Amino acid sequence: MTTFVYDALPGRVVFGPGAASAKLLAEVDAFGARRILLVAGASEEALARELCAPFADRIAATFSDVRPHVPVEIAESAREAAAGADLILCVGGGSTTGTAKAVALTTGLPIVAVPTTYAGSEVTPVWGLTQGSRKTTGTDPVVLPRTVVYDPDLTLTLPATLSVASGLNAVAHCVEAFWAPRRNPVSSAVAEDGIRHLAAGLPAVAADPEDGRARADLLLGAYLAGSAFAVAGSGLHHKICHVLGGAFDLPHAETHAIVLPYVLAFNAPNAPGASSRIASALGREDPVTGLYELGNKLGVPAGLRELGLREADVDTVLDDVLALAPADNPTSVTPDGLTALLRAAWAGTAPMTEET
Amino acid sequence: MTTFVYDALPGRVVFGPGAASAKLLAEVDAFGARRILLVAGASEEALARELCAPFADRIAATFSDVRPHVPVEIAESAREAAAGADLILCVGGGSTTGTAKAVALTTGLPIVAVPTTYAGSEVTPVWGLTQGSRKTTGTDPVVLPRTVVYDPDLTLTLPATLSVASGLNAVAHCVEAFWAPRRNPVSSAVAEDGIRHLAAGLPAVAADPEDGRARADLLLGAYLAGSAFAVAGSGLHHKICHVLGGAFDLPHAETHAIVLPYVLAFNAPNAPGASSRIASALGREDPVTGLYELGNKLGVPAGLRELGLREADVDTVLDDVLALAPADNPTSVTPDGLTALLRAAWAGTAPMTEET
Repeated sequence: MTTFVYDALPGRVVFGPGAASAKLLAEVDAFGARRILLVAGASEEALARELCAPFADRIAATFSDVRPHVPVEIAESAREAAAGADLILCVGGGSTTGTAKAVALTTGLPIVAVPTTYAGSEVTPVWGLTQGSRKTTGTDPVVLPRTVVYDPDLTLTLPATLSVASGLNAVAHCVEAFWAPRRNPVSSAVAEDGIRHLAAGLPAVAADPEDGRARADLLLGAYLAGSAFAVAGSGLHHKICHVLGGAFDLPHAETHAIVLPYVLAFNAPNAPGASSRIASALGREDPVTGLYELGNKLGVPAGLRELGLREADVDTVLDDVLALAPADNPTSVTPDGLTALLRAAWAGTAPMTEET
Repeated sequence: MTTFVYDALPGRVVFGPGAASAKLLAEVDAFGARRILLVAGASEEALARELCAPFADRIAATFSDVRPHVPVEIAESAREAAAGADLILCVGGGSTTGTAKAVALTTGLPIVAVPTTYAGSEVTPVWGLTQGSRKTTGTDPVVLPRTVVYDPDLTLTLPATLSVASGLNAVAHCVEAFWAPRRNPVSSAVAEDGIRHLAAGLPAVAADPEDGRARADLLLGAYLAGSAFAVAGSGLHHKICHVLGGAFDLPHAETHAIVLPYVLAFNAPNAPGASSRIASALGREDPVTGLYELGNKLGVPAGLRELGLREADVDTVLDDVLALAPADNPTSVTPDGLTALLRAAWAGTAPMTEET
């Protein structure tokens, strides 16, 4: 029987080609902002200045020392730069949004976000800070950007490889949303549509990074993926990748892209609703093969072994994954089942859905 | 190209059979409520008292003089009853929720809603008040219930006829969401899933009103329909029904149920995306025929003439509908096209999709 709890997140999304130059002023005006802290990494600062030209006199401070994973000392500097500000405007990718969130966390200032990648973090209330090698994450509604302006034109220059990696990461958020802990009918509907747009946009952007329509598909898919993840959370797939990544310092995006079809194959027999919706979104009969072939087409390495992992390595993470595996994962996570999953993901052989 | 603005509404939804008796206390506790105004019409008062038994000592006042369309004098009495309250808890259908909203509008008190029908208004920020025969409506985030507890078990005793009428009204909200003024990818995904659940639940509830699974489908569909309507708004179909209903005092639910397939037939050729998603949700090749036959099966009258309207009557509303027709309706609304639509809806002949 249908039983769920859904905490819907508020937020305004303005989406469209050219939206950043045409509509940012009105969105900033809606907050009555007079003293804006602009957060934009060095590589986006020129773009950010251009977008802010219509209200340049209201940029009270600019913070550009953006670093991955938001080191606490960077967060502190950004907070100092926010003194007297009434709005945070961030232009950039996940690290930039993360820096803006770190400022909002302690100041309570509203954020207007203009993403330039497919990170999706601009629609989540999740923040993260690192001290040395230790990462702390948390959830706080105050860090959720109040307005997000999505402009696919800003992503036209994002390299194809990075776009594909980021887009595949978004696919993983969508797929996991179907069995994640806080899944609900809305997050599932959003995730399904997210997969549809990502599956359309990914090969098209890989083929032609300047294809505006494909960029719009990819950005829309990334937004939907972020939204689904924000409310549903993550499940077995993210636990596996988290443990593998931590133990062997594997590249994040590739690890996710390799592992995902195997987790889907593992769960599909006991998640028929999710399977048929993922299949429909991929436009394929079999969602597992569909996902695997999408990855192949996009140049995802054939198995974790291509990342330098040895077969014996996968056995060493078994206990850690088992300890983290969600109790309500569609297919019960046994040592044998998990071993088979990990070995197949290591070998890179076509994932097979177990018949039940 | 994809261009949209989406103002996502916040809110917590707790859904499940038995949720009202098992989870209402915790939801009320989450507000730290100590002095609750209970709003429940006379026919739901016994149920409401039973649900509130675990926190009966916190019910500071009960307001049961609920009337359709919330007359202003009723709203005033309810507001007086709210003096000193810290939470409004409403148990009932659309009129009950409407009364709670009228109180929230002036007091700012949060609402916890426990719907017992398929109205959907519990997830919208729309309020309505009537003075004599004049209805005023408005939108204010303060009237949006903060928490909604959906318990399909509470709808088991809702008569089949009323359930079908209410469910078909929800279908109309979903279908219109595809071309309503504030449509966006999230409202479309939610609307599609709403149609799917309503189309499954409606015939099953009509066949057996005590079918718990069918009741869950219908209530879930009604929630999704309300959510889609809340953000997307309404379009041509609602304008037609509003004008027809006002001019000839037609029964609301039947009018909507009769007219909807003809509006879909009118728009379908120029809304291929909406058509294919509605078709998919109905599990039918042709969405227009699917919708029409769903109505037939549920006993929807065959044409407006069965409501006592004369053929010449439909011509008299033409100008009023034309004046209200949304400029961006998928198919341009011309006098000829609208006349043909209305005459077909009057006659009740199978609606035909124009080839383009």
